[in-house]
Amino acid sequence: MTVLVTGTAVARVRAAYARIAEVDRPEVWITLVPLDDALEAAAAVDAALAGGADLPLAGTTLAVKDNIDVAGLPTTAACPSFASGPAAVSAPAVQRLVDAGAVVIGKTNLDQFATGLVGTRSPYGAVRHATLPERVSGGSSSGSAVAVALGIADIGLGTDTAGSGRVPAAFGGIVGIKTTVGLVPTTGVVPACRSYDVVTTFTRGLELGALATRLMAVGGARTWPVDVRLGLRAAPVVAVPRVADLAPLSPGWRTAFASAVAAVSATGASVRVVDVSPMLDAARLLYDGAILAERYDAVGPFLAAGPADADSTVASIILAGAAIPAAEYVADRARLDAARAAALAALDGCDLLLLPTTTEHPTIAAVQADPVGINRRLGTYTNFVNLLDLAAVAVPAGEADGGPFGVTVVSRAFDDQLALDLAARLLAGSTAPGALVADPGDALVADPGAARVADTGAALVADPDAALVVDAGVDVLVVGAHLRGQPLHHELEDLGARFVASVRTSDAYRLVALDTVPRKPGLVRAGPGRGAPIAGEVWRLSSGALGRFLAELPAPMSLGRVELSDGSWVVGFGCTAEAGAAAADVTAAGGWVEALRRGLPTVG
Amino acid sequence: MTVLVTGTAVARVRAAYARIAEVDRPEVWITLVPLDDALEAAAAVDAALAGGADLPLAGTTLAVKDNIDVAGLPTTAACPSFASGPAAVSAPAVQRLVDAGAVVIGKTNLDQFATGLVGTRSPYGAVRHATLPERVSGGSSSGSAVAVALGIADIGLGTDTAGSGRVPAAFGGIVGIKTTVGLVPTTGVVPACRSYDVVTTFTRGLELGALATRLMAVGGARTWPVDVRLGLRAAPVVAVPRVADLAPLSPGWRTAFASAVAAVSATGASVRVVDVSPMLDAARLLYDGAILAERYDAVGPFLAAGPADADSTVASIILAGAAIPAAEYVADRARLDAARAAALAALDGCDLLLLPTTTEHPTIAAVQADPVGINRRLGTYTNFVNLLDLAAVAVPAGEADGGPFGVTVVSRAFDDQLALDLAARLLAGSTAPGALVADPGDALVADPGAARVADTGAALVADPDAALVVDAGVDVLVVGAHLRGQPLHHELEDLGARFVASVRTSDAYRLVALDTVPRKPGLVRAGPGRGAPIAGEVWRLSSGALGRFLAELPAPMSLGRVELSDGSWVVGFGCTAEAGAAAADVTAAGGWVEALRRGLPTVG
Repeated sequence: MTVLVTGTAVARVRAAYARIAEVDRPEVWITLVPLDDALEAAAAVDAALAGGADLPLAGTTLAVKDNIDVAGLPTTAACPSFASGPAAVSAPAVQRLVDAGAVVIGKTNLDQFATGLVGTRSPYGAVRHATLPERVSGGSSSGSAVAVALGIADIGLGTDTAGSGRVPAAFGGIVGIKTTVGLVPTTGVVPACRSYDVVTTFTRGLELGALATRLMAVGGARTWPVDVRLGLRAAPVVAVPRVADLAPLSPGWRTAFASAVAAVSATGASVRVVDVSPMLDAARLLYDGAILAERYDAVGPFLAAGPADADSTVASIILAGAAIPAAEYVADRARLDAARAAALAALDGCDLLLLPTTTEHPTIAAVQADPVGINRRLGTYTNFVNLLDLAAVAVPAGEADGGPFGVTVVSRAFDDQLALDLAARLLAGSTAPGALVADPGDALVADPGAARVADTGAALVADPDAALVVDAGVDVLVVGAHLRGQPLHHELEDLGARFVASVRTSDAYRLVALDTVPRKPGLVRAGPGRGAPIAGEVWRLSSGALGRFLAELPAPMSLGRVELSDGSWVVGFGCTAEAGAAAADVTAAGGWVEALRRGLPTVG
Repeated sequence: MTVLVTGTAVARVRAAYARIAEVDRPEVWITLVPLDDALEAAAAVDAALAGGADLPLAGTTLAVKDNIDVAGLPTTAACPSFASGPAAVSAPAVQRLVDAGAVVIGKTNLDQFATGLVGTRSPYGAVRHATLPERVSGGSSSGSAVAVALGIADIGLGTDTAGSGRVPAAFGGIVGIKTTVGLVPTTGVVPACRSYDVVTTFTRGLELGALATRLMAVGGARTWPVDVRLGLRAAPVVAVPRVADLAPLSPGWRTAFASAVAAVSATGASVRVVDVSPMLDAARLLYDGAILAERYDAVGPFLAAGPADADSTVASIILAGAAIPAAEYVADRARLDAARAAALAALDGCDLLLLPTTTEHPTIAAVQADPVGINRRLGTYTNFVNLLDLAAVAVPAGEADGGPFGVTVVSRAFDDQLALDLAARLLAGSTAPGALVADPGDALVADPGAARVADTGAALVADPDAALVVDAGVDVLVVGAHLRGQPLHHELEDLGARFVASVRTSDAYRLVALDTVPRKPGLVRAGPGRGAPIAGEVWRLSSGALGRFLAELPAPMSLGRVELSDGSWVVGFGCTAEAGAAAADVTAAGGWVEALRRGLPTVG
């Protein structure tokens, strides 16, 4: 994956602060880093970069939700009296981005204690929507989302328990990535519900969000499984809700969702209607059930003391958690286990689930008149996701009711990459790229002249999709029946293989046509200069998937090291000397597809 | 793994009922299956076996703790009024054993609602120890353990939350296998603490317990990971507690544990003293903390109604769970997460942990005088294991204080097989096999004439160790540097490879000495009759481990299908034709070790 950034870090920090002054949205920020401090940090990034440091996020600006620690700044969670002083160290999630070159410009407003989906529940003021100031920004990660939507910050960090990293993305017309619970460490984050909290990213484009997420998703309570799928099949099956499940949508949002379903079909996916009502029902356990006790555990005793700066709606919600008996919590966890099993059963045979991110885009006035009812409706399609151990990517999908419209791609736990891949295909096919900021100078742009390859470790990746877990993979060269369009390619797709590059071998290899069904080529190492560059494709597999692939590999095929034309070596196909010697040489074709086109020699 | 059973199922059921009559231990049983019903089931097993059915447990008798459903029998959990009638279906754990040929002979007594480690808390009477009737049997799975120790049942099913599947094994001089939480389904089991309950086996020998466990460990909430380790290295590092951590032991048990540590050393393991006090401290969260609310969730409302047949000690413990606030439970779960991380850190660099199973062997009178205090001490080394997501195998280890003494091998989650392997080595090295029943007619004996290979799928396994997860593996042939005693063998050990068999290839292969460091052989397929049978070893790797192995494999080595002398094909080593052709032929040696002994040709 390449992330392209123009301009020095110093120039981009200056531009961010100019934009802050221009937009006049003081309610976005709880603490703004002094310009000189940010410039100093940016200058250090530029100097390190000039010295050859590997800083994939150099030149990006970072806004951090104020329930996540940043060293030297207070963490208020939107309750001023909650902060006991500046944080000593940054949360690991923040530190990883800073270590990669991002410059923190401030701590952002939120629904107090991350309790809400509206962005209005804060003594620092209701956060107005980026372009429709009478409407809500969405929350709870309101400030970070608006900072990104307004083009101030390149990356906004949020947290998401009930949808706080997705609903504001939908309203802002930006991308929100909520990984599988436990992948990104939550150390240094004020808990909302400790079992279900996720640190999330807001970005204007998908690639930067995926890169930031990949950097953060290290050292959490869970790790990528050994057989994690690294890529979405070309023609996935995507579940969508029944019409009845879409009843909560405003008419405009319902129409827009129908268009999004059509857009998914247009990417080559099959759409399958499933009954998602058991998932939607599970959502009620988050606020109406005993899980609420987690919120009381986190900040209940603080709120019970009656601080003057507590938001009354937030306090009344959280304090209700004090009276819940533990046995009820245990019973609700059992109900969630059952609901999760039912959700996975409903998704059986489907790769992903497409949902509207939320139901409507309300005004601030409407929310203030009905602070709980509208908030609850907004979580219809987000509340259950973390509870049922699913991952989600929220992306813009055009407009509805005069503002941005958004959909969310939901995956099973650890299938985050598959959700990202479908999201990328949706964005690539969209006429509205979803960036509210039209000025390319503010965006991460693809000016090849100014391009900097952000992640040299993934430099082979020509695929425009965003790669989340590339570190987990093993590159495997295929030269025959596993190539795209060839009869065994589905084996790679089923294992979640991710396309890396079309390549050629070094000139040390001869290609032969084996006597197999289906016909397969054998790649036989003959020695430098004794063969020809043979065309192939490199696919990345998790090591667990690679083991399964090898376990099923029939004779006379083998897997070992193969040399590519650039001198690198990858795992690749070979065959036994016996089979290779007995087969017809088709090296002159330069590759299996061309050999097939020319016609294989018949088996003698 | 081979399990050897003598006699027909009918004969063994008759023998079991004769033994029941002989020992006069009515308190062992809550419901005994009528002899005629058991004989009918046994006759059906014998008939199916004669018809060619694959019944690895044919001829075994099964006793089931009465908190686990068996179709047609009531489930009392040792509280008669709790049973609402006969269970409609058997718990999956039971059904799998019955499907494999085991015959249920009855439901066994327990500490009521599986709350206790003593075996005295039951209106059906205190279960007396098998050979020392003034002492406790241990609990809560008291009846199942004694039924096995007395030679009545071959397999006893227990449940284990705090040690109920291990403490009675220690007192009974038998084997208790407590797998990683979630592997064996707990459907159809009366919960004690639903997050931590495990269905366990008691057996007189390790192999039968491993086989039964393997059959049961399907369809639970968790599955074996793709990279599960399948075998313990030859010289593992085994953690043992500090002297201070052993203070709760009776003097006799302390001396016996010192002998057990010496016995571990004698198996070739390195012993490392670690501070286990944080683990022992975590144990207090089970009964003194909010986790108790899980017991209230399970049966609290039933007990709150004041049934006359409730055990007063049990009721007072469980009813205390009613008043616990959910937020305290949430906080205790967070403490357990931290304790688990600390436990894993303490075990860093160690393969396993050896502990005394319990502290002492009290009399029934002593327990009745102090029903809570002694019970608590007995759980010192068992209570924390499930809470911290560890697995355990309890095995007999000689005698202490005039009765059986036992130790427990503790592993990380999913390393169950490693614990079994060390347990097998300890038992193999023990002069006291741990079977209380001296009459070989009652035991599972190794009479080759009457032998029946129980698991044909694993027929290659010549290793005496018990294999738990063989289905998860891929067999890999090594012929050179990865053989036992050769320089790269540690790579297999690090990946948890399990030895399967010493084999020879078919006569289609030639062996060459490649120009590598260290020197490696190349196995080159030349065609049937054009080579010679080459000596090698088959090792079983999980598919995740196999993928890692392949990812690191250097040129010119490859992995593909290799034909063995019995005509079967396994994944095995090969090399490129180029390297094979350039290397010296050492086929005449018949194998790499012999070729090394003769001296390799120098590289030209």
